[in-house]
Amino acid sequence: MQRVTNCVIQYEGRILLLKKPRRGWWYPPGGKMKHEELLPEAAEREVYEETGLTVRKPELRGILTHLVLDEETYLEKRTMFLFEAHSFNGTVRQKSPEGELAWISADELNTLEMDEADRTVIKSMLENEGMLYGTFIYDNHRSLQSYKLEINGRRIQQGYDGGR
Amino acid sequence: MQRVTNCVIQYEGRILLLKKPRRGWWYPPGGKMKHEELLPEAAEREVYEETGLTVRKPELRGILTHLVLDEETYLEKRTMFLFEAHSFNGTVRQKSPEGELAWISADELNTLEMDEADRTVIKSMLENEGMLYGTFIYDNHRSLQSYKLEINGRRIQQGYDGGR
Repeated sequence: MQRVTNCVIQYEGRILLLKKPRRGWWYPPGGKMKHEELLPEAAEREVYEETGLTVRKPELRGILTHLVLDEETYLEKRTMFLFEAHSFNGTVRQKSPEGELAWISADELNTLEMDEADRTVIKSMLENEGMLYGTFIYDNHRSLQSYKLEINGRRIQQGYDGGR
Repeated sequence: MQRVTNCVIQYEGRILLLKKPRRGWWYPPGGKMKHEELLPEAAEREVYEETGLTVRKPELRGILTHLVLDEETYLEKRTMFLFEAHSFNGTVRQKSPEGELAWISADELNTLEMDEADRTVIKSMLENEGMLYGTFIYDNHRSLQSYKLEINGRRIQQGYDGGR
């Protein structure tokens, strides 16, 4: 099970997202954890590498399992640790090695090209307090098939069956 | 990376531990997560299977990486999600399918036969608020070689170099 950290950095009502060239989708800065890293260390390192910012005390807000299922075989299994940060030092890179960076408003989040799981989870995180737990199942074309998502022991949504 | 949930159940100043026959060591109830389970679902299921108790709203208190290292190869890689619960229903099984169950005091924790990582993490969890992050490295005889442990962004201990 691959481990990935992502971090939603907030500043004046906007969040910092990164547009990766491969699909043209927007993502929170993040990436694969190294084996011996602590989770916040991984989140801080990835944010710095991709944005140039040094975040202080990122807070864990969600743990999400992403599974890519082909019939009965899991092609990919990933645990995503979603962090939130409100405090940072430094200046956002003009151009990240990974793609274009932009500060996005909550409204823009509804229409941006992005992974539906990321959209759902980031919106839930911004609208609620507490820890998010979720499982997202994709088919082998990377289209979201179903999910369950919980916050503070309350089931938010389940059984997504389509897409945009 | 295998994912494991453990849960420290507290009641009247004691915690419920399970003595597994293989080494004679004491562990918090828990076990391997299923792929599509949410983390709290896994913790609740494992507690029920091993103790007969139904815990309510277990709270995540720590995320710990356990690595078994043989020279430069990782023989085992495990992410342990440590939960805490104060509220439960049901009656503790007289005998668990996994071993002997007992309510243990904080003092007894110091001398009990158990994994040194578990001892350190459980004590830190009971003595502090906030989220614990740690990495524990064992040799191929399952003896703890080194670790780092952080709570609320503060490094608690590092560089353990011996043990029992």
